[in-house]
Amino acid sequence: MRILHTSDWHLGRQLHGRSLLADQAHVLEQVLDIAERDEVDVVLIAGDVYDRAVPPAEAVSLLGNTLRRLCVELGKQVILIAGNHDSAERLGFAAELLGHAGLHIVGPLTAEPRPLTLVAAERGGHTVSAIAVDFFGLPYAGPAQVRQTLGVEVSSHDEAMGALLERVESARDHSRPCVVMAHCFVAGGEASDSERPLSLGGADQVAGDRFAPYTYAALGHLHGPQHRGAQHIRYSGSILKYSFSEARQRKSVTLVDIDGAGGVTIAQRDLKPLRDVRIIEGSLDALLATGHTDPAADDFICARLTGSGAVLDVMGKLRAVYPNALQAVRLTRDSGGARFGAGRDVLKQSQYELFREFYCHVQGEGMSDAQQRYLQSLLQALQQEGSL
Amino acid sequence: MRILHTSDWHLGRQLHGRSLLADQAHVLEQVLDIAERDEVDVVLIAGDVYDRAVPPAEAVSLLGNTLRRLCVELGKQVILIAGNHDSAERLGFAAELLGHAGLHIVGPLTAEPRPLTLVAAERGGHTVSAIAVDFFGLPYAGPAQVRQTLGVEVSSHDEAMGALLERVESARDHSRPCVVMAHCFVAGGEASDSERPLSLGGADQVAGDRFAPYTYAALGHLHGPQHRGAQHIRYSGSILKYSFSEARQRKSVTLVDIDGAGGVTIAQRDLKPLRDVRIIEGSLDALLATGHTDPAADDFICARLTGSGAVLDVMGKLRAVYPNALQAVRLTRDSGGARFGAGRDVLKQSQYELFREFYCHVQGEGMSDAQQRYLQSLLQALQQEGSL
Repeated sequence: MRILHTSDWHLGRQLHGRSLLADQAHVLEQVLDIAERDEVDVVLIAGDVYDRAVPPAEAVSLLGNTLRRLCVELGKQVILIAGNHDSAERLGFAAELLGHAGLHIVGPLTAEPRPLTLVAAERGGHTVSAIAVDFFGLPYAGPAQVRQTLGVEVSSHDEAMGALLERVESARDHSRPCVVMAHCFVAGGEASDSERPLSLGGADQVAGDRFAPYTYAALGHLHGPQHRGAQHIRYSGSILKYSFSEARQRKSVTLVDIDGAGGVTIAQRDLKPLRDVRIIEGSLDALLATGHTDPAADDFICARLTGSGAVLDVMGKLRAVYPNALQAVRLTRDSGGARFGAGRDVLKQSQYELFREFYCHVQGEGMSDAQQRYLQSLLQALQQEGSL
Repeated sequence: MRILHTSDWHLGRQLHGRSLLADQAHVLEQVLDIAERDEVDVVLIAGDVYDRAVPPAEAVSLLGNTLRRLCVELGKQVILIAGNHDSAERLGFAAELLGHAGLHIVGPLTAEPRPLTLVAAERGGHTVSAIAVDFFGLPYAGPAQVRQTLGVEVSSHDEAMGALLERVESARDHSRPCVVMAHCFVAGGEASDSERPLSLGGADQVAGDRFAPYTYAALGHLHGPQHRGAQHIRYSGSILKYSFSEARQRKSVTLVDIDGAGGVTIAQRDLKPLRDVRIIEGSLDALLATGHTDPAADDFICARLTGSGAVLDVMGKLRAVYPNALQAVRLTRDSGGARFGAGRDVLKQSQYELFREFYCHVQGEGMSDAQQRYLQSLLQALQQEGSL
């Protein structure tokens, strides 16, 4: 059975106030192509399919259209769990009806997780045989929700996941391969700036070996593709770079082949963005000179500027050649010659994103352009006066 | 073929700040019962299934659960069009996938309406025969949207509906009975205070005889059950009384039998509310005395008070016996002995509802209790000083 594992689509998300809808549609075309060309049987989407509980109507249309093409045009089975950015109730609308068309959405947490058993022809053999795999989709749920829904005493995300997996253990058929989908932060995972913390102070971390007993753990939440502890406990990563801290990541989807003996083979398929998210570095003059002939001048750009002279309207000059320049950072050298500024910038960026998310969460809609500009200037001013 | 026609569920709506979710779930149980007991083939929901573009998560769950039971447990076909309160894009999510399970949602307007042809066994004959009926679901769309989507020049709601029905005419199979679903204000229709005007100054009205050529027109928008011009051009009305101006209405769903010759038989099935919406009238003392033994003291109450003495804390006294008293109006007599006050009250109520809708629409969430109280007191003060 061939599985395509993806997660963290964050449809409707913006990057520094710029819409990414065209970029998201662009890579989703590639996901559809891969599902078709690689003859995938099942597509797993491990949460955060939307960027917020009430996504923009265009994001709803993009998701609906993509899922329709996967299920109806390509005939794939799709399993989708709610992440911490999604509203489980809204995402779970009419889930049982959608199951008839091969779209299996796991919205709100239920006390007794039930497996979805899918059957596919086994590949590579001389005789045709079938392989059945159990899939358990666990939507994102914090300790409080697990306490309430399962009626168990858990106080950390790790204990909550333990309680959920206990239910999975008693519901699974041990004669079959078993795939678990979860949306969580596995301890030791490499985070980036674009994930919303599940809780503060590290209490959100789940021990990776909890997933060791399963044939494959299809994880969502962390935006960089990575495995934790073993190859089969894996984050596919997001479909796009959602912050400059991900500039060096290669975004991809994961292909997982499961054979009748429960053996697993893993491959990655790269996704090529419509506009890359890049950090460029040099003097302003040098960057502008390069930019004039840069074939990818439409990329989203963070410029790290060397040189100490005061320059007026840096962003205006940059945008004359890089229209999607979103950020400029001045690099300075300390006595040892090391650069700093970037760490601080990441901090600012993170606070910007955090506040933006918080605003969305509270107001049910994103900040206006004017509000985003004000927030940016405020954070910049605080940084300049040393308060950040 | 037997059709159950309903509309204007307005799930998530409040009445003067009170949640109606339990009341809505209560009557939806009756709709399910009627669909089963009366052996309905098709359920038509003619728009405004939600009260606003972004309904509360509980309303999403209630709709999802009701549709699941209709389609999966009872095996009914369901056709649902978006109304002016719904977000067509949000409601239309995964519509094509849901069609596989018998749930046919018509979200955004399309340039070429296509019929859904449903087949049922014909009733009452000695031999078993089948009847096929074409259903066209037209979601709510104002003139601007019809101009844009169909590429035609229309400037009024009436012309817009005309353009849509022209497309229906050219797409329908004239050898079959044909049912049109639409969400609009048919001229001459009896409005109530709880419908949001489609446009100002009467430009929202559609000529009823546009629907004359069809076997049945299942209309939504007006909350009182009524037909316009002919029996087969009909509003089922809302499932609950959503304002005191509807206190005298009987809420129901409409059953429509279509025979092979295109003949139509119409019946109504009453819906019994969990808590009625009532207007009571008398002196405060008399109302309080009656209230103490009123078996339906939980109803939503508007008290029309006779007598001229000043009374402190009228609402507090009323709520001691009618916990869901929502409004009190003092009746006064003019020289001719006629009462007034009510007309003015309806005006105030209408402005209150209009502003509440407007706030929801702009903010994406309802007003808080404190905001609603403030708005009410403001409107009351304006009314008292004669500005309203």
